Amino acid sequence: MKLSANQLNFSGGPGALPESVLQQLHTAMLCVPEVGLSILGISHRSEWFAQVVHELEDNMRQLMGLPASTRVLMMQGGATQQFSMLPMNLLRNGQSADYIHSGYWSGKAIHEAEKSGQLQLAWSGKADQFGRLPSDAELQLSKDAAYFHYISNETVEGLQFHRVPGRDDVPRICDMSSDLLSAPGDFNRYAMIYAHAQKNIGPAGVTMVILRDDFMNSLPDDLPGFINYHAQADAHSIYNTPPVFAIYSVLLVTRWLRDEIGGLPNIAKRNQQKADCLYQVLDDHADFYRGRAAVADRSKMNVVFNLPNAEIEQAFLQAAQLAGFSGLNGHRSIGGIRASIYNGLESAAAEQLADFMQTFRKRYKATTQTTVRSPAYA
Amino acid sequence: MKLSANQLNFSGGPGALPESVLQQLHTAMLCVPEVGLSILGISHRSEWFAQVVHELEDNMRQLMGLPASTRVLMMQGGATQQFSMLPMNLLRNGQSADYIHSGYWSGKAIHEAEKSGQLQLAWSGKADQFGRLPSDAELQLSKDAAYFHYISNETVEGLQFHRVPGRDDVPRICDMSSDLLSAPGDFNRYAMIYAHAQKNIGPAGVTMVILRDDFMNSLPDDLPGFINYHAQADAHSIYNTPPVFAIYSVLLVTRWLRDEIGGLPNIAKRNQQKADCLYQVLDDHADFYRGRAAVADRSKMNVVFNLPNAEIEQAFLQAAQLAGFSGLNGHRSIGGIRASIYNGLESAAAEQLADFMQTFRKRYKATTQTTVRSPAYA
Repeated sequence: MKLSANQLNFSGGPGALPESVLQQLHTAMLCVPEVGLSILGISHRSEWFAQVVHELEDNMRQLMGLPASTRVLMMQGGATQQFSMLPMNLLRNGQSADYIHSGYWSGKAIHEAEKSGQLQLAWSGKADQFGRLPSDAELQLSKDAAYFHYISNETVEGLQFHRVPGRDDVPRICDMSSDLLSAPGDFNRYAMIYAHAQKNIGPAGVTMVILRDDFMNSLPDDLPGFINYHAQADAHSIYNTPPVFAIYSVLLVTRWLRDEIGGLPNIAKRNQQKADCLYQVLDDHADFYRGRAAVADRSKMNVVFNLPNAEIEQAFLQAAQLAGFSGLNGHRSIGGIRASIYNGLESAAAEQLADFMQTFRKRYKATTQTTVRSPAYA
Repeated sequence: MKLSANQLNFSGGPGALPESVLQQLHTAMLCVPEVGLSILGISHRSEWFAQVVHELEDNMRQLMGLPASTRVLMMQGGATQQFSMLPMNLLRNGQSADYIHSGYWSGKAIHEAEKSGQLQLAWSGKADQFGRLPSDAELQLSKDAAYFHYISNETVEGLQFHRVPGRDDVPRICDMSSDLLSAPGDFNRYAMIYAHAQKNIGPAGVTMVILRDDFMNSLPDDLPGFINYHAQADAHSIYNTPPVFAIYSVLLVTRWLRDEIGGLPNIAKRNQQKADCLYQVLDDHADFYRGRAAVADRSKMNVVFNLPNAEIEQAFLQAAQLAGFSGLNGHRSIGGIRASIYNGLESAAAEQLADFMQTFRKRYKATTQTTVRSPAYA
């Protein structure tokens, strides 16, 4: 099966989008069929766009199994804006919030939030170089916290929570930027979920915020509009001009999930297959492909590993690129290799990468048995 | 000359983009030629995207005649976010700022800014129903203001400043959302200029912020990253994942302005032609097409007018739509008719609309001379 360059994109984000969504956006750039205009020239105040937002809200609730009262917002500013908006909304009267520090991105969340409020560390994986996630027993959680915050999937280190941590009597807030819509979950146990789009949901430039009604009602309503969840919700994400193109793209992704994939249980199966086939190579050849994450906490979105040394890693990346794979370099903060296998990536792409990894290892071993440090193994 | 639906789009915003830019974005949706990937799957940390931002910054400085020290940022959140960021950055120690209230959008700017700081009204056009702009003598400006703020073009009322108001000894800040890049100007007299993209610059989802270095250095650096101009500038608009597609689109628009149009003096000529040909119809038939703005303050971006009554306005809009024109309805706050003639709209489109307006009037007059209130004039 011959896959296109877009289909062999293992980038950590912005990630690959489904081929059928790209084709529809390709068409929409010149003409959205129902409207007769380029998607870039359609008013955000049009009937058509109101329907786009309405259907998108419904699709999200349907896919995630959320009640009709749940608010679904499309905002700007990325997860980074949410990092700050949470304490700006919830900690301004001196309250404190509990945060898990499980890797690079939760570190960023804490760094930004500390500028606007007081935090308590529920757990930190720093001493373990963020190689694992905490057990429930290790978490220091206060019943008086204004909220409890964690990141469900750490893209840099390749760690993913496979359970719902936290107390049910404290608002649970989760940054699901890199795994929302990748599998079913107990989404009703969250006061708020947020996720930028550019992993599983759509292009960079829009951020999904999902708020439980009772939690929403506890938030202040006197903040400026751009950081006011009430204002954004009341306006159905059209408080001011929203990123029309990005929101339309997200709608198409939810339609794809619903109609072509058949919902979250099915995409979860496909994501599991992709993860299994790559982790199998790591397990079969642990001497050569060294997985970064503790086995129990392995991410189904980001398979992060090292090779015996940096030179071999460079050779691997070069050979992979020649073979048509892209985006396999690890995050700039830790290097190594990262295969991001978000929703848009097909199983065949992961299988091809697994085959490539097997072949690369064999060639390397064969070369190093006859000559030392030959560049020919690439 | 047969124009496409996109070329006859007179929407108030998001507005029509140039045909050649749409064609390049149509291609980029599947494959950016230099990269080999969809624009939606390219990492914002790639060399290629760093070049996109670099060239865009340079193109803006070149087009506007700004020194190399000027900072050019691409941010999220629209002009609305800037409405709040200004007082959050500049008025937090109790200072006051001067604002002109010249129409709907400056009213919004004032409404948002008041939530975060203290403002003084330099002038309000409310008593005149925002039908004109102030003279210099009418402006109440304080030399102690932290800054002076105005909106260069009011899209709803069709009013545009054709001079630079304000004092040179107070930082001058202008929202040029609807006329930046539409004509040359004394841009060095501004401490800061901002503009969302979706009129003349690109698609909705990105906002240009242009800061003079000395003003930039006077801003606080301890705010959260998403509202911190220093953090955004130091990172060259990649503090966190930016709206890659929207920024690339803006780059293409600046290339189009530079290479196809030949710079701001040339686009200004074209914009003047479009405005002239529509205002000529208003002036020739003032009994039928009633321009909203005082003649001296007429906008070259938004030609706003009424017809003798709301029924005729509805007939006009229906007939215009049948003739292939779109987006001609006035803003929801005031109704009437609005022809937005941003950069992307070709002169031929304005000429066709002017012809249509002549014809519509003749038919209406002919019909009403023989039968009263016949619907046949459409």
